[in-house]
Amino acid sequence: MSAELITVGDELLYGQTIDTNAAFIGEKLSEAGIELDFHTTVGDQPDKLLNAIGQAFNRVDIVLTTGGLGPTHDDITKKVICKFFKRQLVFHEDILKKLEKKYASQGMTMPYINQNQALLPQGAKFIDNKIGSALGIIIEDAGKIFVAIPGVPNEMKIMMTEHVIPILERRGSRRVIVHRRIRTIGITESAIYEKVKSTIDEKSAVRIAFLPGLEGVDVRLTVKSDDKEKAKEAIEDTQNQFIKKIGDYIFGYDDDELPVVTGKLLLDKKMTLAVAESCTGGWLGKLLTDIPGSSAYFWGGVIAYTDEIKIKILSVPAIVIERHGAVSIETAKYMAEGVKNLSGASIGMSITGIAGPSGGSPSKPVGLTYIGISTPEGTSAKEYHYGRDRNRNRMRASCSALDMLRRHLLGME
Amino acid sequence: MSAELITVGDELLYGQTIDTNAAFIGEKLSEAGIELDFHTTVGDQPDKLLNAIGQAFNRVDIVLTTGGLGPTHDDITKKVICKFFKRQLVFHEDILKKLEKKYASQGMTMPYINQNQALLPQGAKFIDNKIGSALGIIIEDAGKIFVAIPGVPNEMKIMMTEHVIPILERRGSRRVIVHRRIRTIGITESAIYEKVKSTIDEKSAVRIAFLPGLEGVDVRLTVKSDDKEKAKEAIEDTQNQFIKKIGDYIFGYDDDELPVVTGKLLLDKKMTLAVAESCTGGWLGKLLTDIPGSSAYFWGGVIAYTDEIKIKILSVPAIVIERHGAVSIETAKYMAEGVKNLSGASIGMSITGIAGPSGGSPSKPVGLTYIGISTPEGTSAKEYHYGRDRNRNRMRASCSALDMLRRHLLGME
Repeated sequence: MSAELITVGDELLYGQTIDTNAAFIGEKLSEAGIELDFHTTVGDQPDKLLNAIGQAFNRVDIVLTTGGLGPTHDDITKKVICKFFKRQLVFHEDILKKLEKKYASQGMTMPYINQNQALLPQGAKFIDNKIGSALGIIIEDAGKIFVAIPGVPNEMKIMMTEHVIPILERRGSRRVIVHRRIRTIGITESAIYEKVKSTIDEKSAVRIAFLPGLEGVDVRLTVKSDDKEKAKEAIEDTQNQFIKKIGDYIFGYDDDELPVVTGKLLLDKKMTLAVAESCTGGWLGKLLTDIPGSSAYFWGGVIAYTDEIKIKILSVPAIVIERHGAVSIETAKYMAEGVKNLSGASIGMSITGIAGPSGGSPSKPVGLTYIGISTPEGTSAKEYHYGRDRNRNRMRASCSALDMLRRHLLGME
Repeated sequence: MSAELITVGDELLYGQTIDTNAAFIGEKLSEAGIELDFHTTVGDQPDKLLNAIGQAFNRVDIVLTTGGLGPTHDDITKKVICKFFKRQLVFHEDILKKLEKKYASQGMTMPYINQNQALLPQGAKFIDNKIGSALGIIIEDAGKIFVAIPGVPNEMKIMMTEHVIPILERRGSRRVIVHRRIRTIGITESAIYEKVKSTIDEKSAVRIAFLPGLEGVDVRLTVKSDDKEKAKEAIEDTQNQFIKKIGDYIFGYDDDELPVVTGKLLLDKKMTLAVAESCTGGWLGKLLTDIPGSSAYFWGGVIAYTDEIKIKILSVPAIVIERHGAVSIETAKYMAEGVKNLSGASIGMSITGIAGPSGGSPSKPVGLTYIGISTPEGTSAKEYHYGRDRNRNRMRASCSALDMLRRHLLGME
């Protein structure tokens, strides 16, 4: 079965909101073996949405819209649905009562405008909304399926996972799409390609794509097949070729995230971590604590944004900063050691760099960063050269630190 | 002039990459008075891209594609352009030489595969790429304009801003689109609507949209007009109505960001800030240091992810944590005071909460968060109730802290 996603909202075309829903929906459909053939975005104008829905019904089996289901006047989706399917909006007393109860349970009175949420297209099926006030809508017509869900990300996600995907899967074909994402860090797209190109067979059923991101380069392998087992085998074969060629740079697969992978290694080795961050200002700590359960191995740290805190709390000798600068291999080493001693954690890590846009000099340009690691075996630091973009540099520094830790814990280098 | 954006890449449809380019391009076009009528996403299949380009040329004046210009085999855009415009790929010696020089200047040898980047469609104009290896392509045909630029965000951004927009603006019409984004925090979409609805005139030229996000709710005002001055006036009028009704919740307009607004207030008052973060683990520090120049007012802080660090470094009395818990109004106050005293900054702020998914109890459910502030005038803390999503809770806590600081510095409450 083929699908088209239509996302609705001026804010998407005007660029005031980044469309994160589309990625989530694309992934879920793909996992369910449904091909998302097109994704169209239209503004809050009823005629354009009507047009897009009509076009989509001409070319795919499943049409899914997100957005435009809110209670205010700029939410147009329900009206357009009624026009397209030639149905009326019907008032549902029971839905209104439920909504009022939901508000009451949180000690609030329902805003009057939310009455609109009890008006729904005749003959449609509804999807409950655990969080917000807008119900999802399902209409089956002439063998095709139409689904409308809210654009608020967490409401959309629950509805997709718990309702829409199970419904679509029950009617799905047997064709499968198998993906594997090989996640690398510390190596460029071209360098990966050079290393693996001899093993890439353009006629193979496995499609290979390189996706450079902020953390590193992902390699995506895809096979479409009627035979799930054979597809998996083909993916495994290609994956093994990559492991042979660039194994050290691979930190994980599919949904693996660098902070999770690194955290698990710490947990396995019963080690704890403390961080001292200068230019990243807390970003490394944020990445580590994004992960539930990180308190088992992450002790915390110091955001050493000024020299004073480096000296006063991390015990970096003032003379070291004076002589070598706050951005130097020496300061990085003292910072890592300082936070390790302060915390009693098994490992201390540090980041100090010139994130930019200003603060650079010919000898220490923007992008120059030092990352330190202090372990029971000793302390060392490494020099990195990133680019000119402040927040890209800071993200890359945080990821390099995690990768340095990963390599240390795996006994590499 | 009307435009269509076509973004190319399986990764966008499969949901492995979030399309941030579309938002940026939509915004830039809109600012230049060009209406982005459609945005279509297609995968890395030549036939679908060919189809999408054909469709786009039927309905708009400007067709812009991003992605698929890399050197590897999955980059299909150049081939499809040649097919659509019936042109050949031509080898450009000078472009190859430039590329090799670029690599050499960074002490690297150009990977062989990058030779492909010197192959370009016959008769096209090119856009220089300051960062990467793929040039942008411009083809004018039958009074319409076709532009292809890389999908790598920072390469795309420079090309759009420095080349594509100036070119398109020179041919633009006089019609203008004026936007204003009113940025609020601490108030829901429905509550804003209830407060302002009496002033909303559905027949007004000003279109109003509510955009709830993680930080807060944005209200977008839009006017399309032939008269720029009149459009601006209409926007100002509506904006003033909002200021009257919900002024306290407005932290800024258009591109204003909460950390920037708050940082400017600190700078104006010559005050400095230090933070003590438990559940947010560095996120507040990250947001503050995202801003260039933040070292003028941000001292740094302590990521107090364990009780030990709260006691040892922030001087929270152990008995307070024992009696009231690490997530309590008392601990929040001690943390804020502790980091203020430790740092000598004028203001100390603290965050401690139960981010989830686990760690909640009936008396202290997931989402319960305390934010503390310690100033020369005294120390206080406030209780917040967020939802169940760990990282949403942490983001909201970081923003609430910034808003608390903003309100304090403005003498509100």
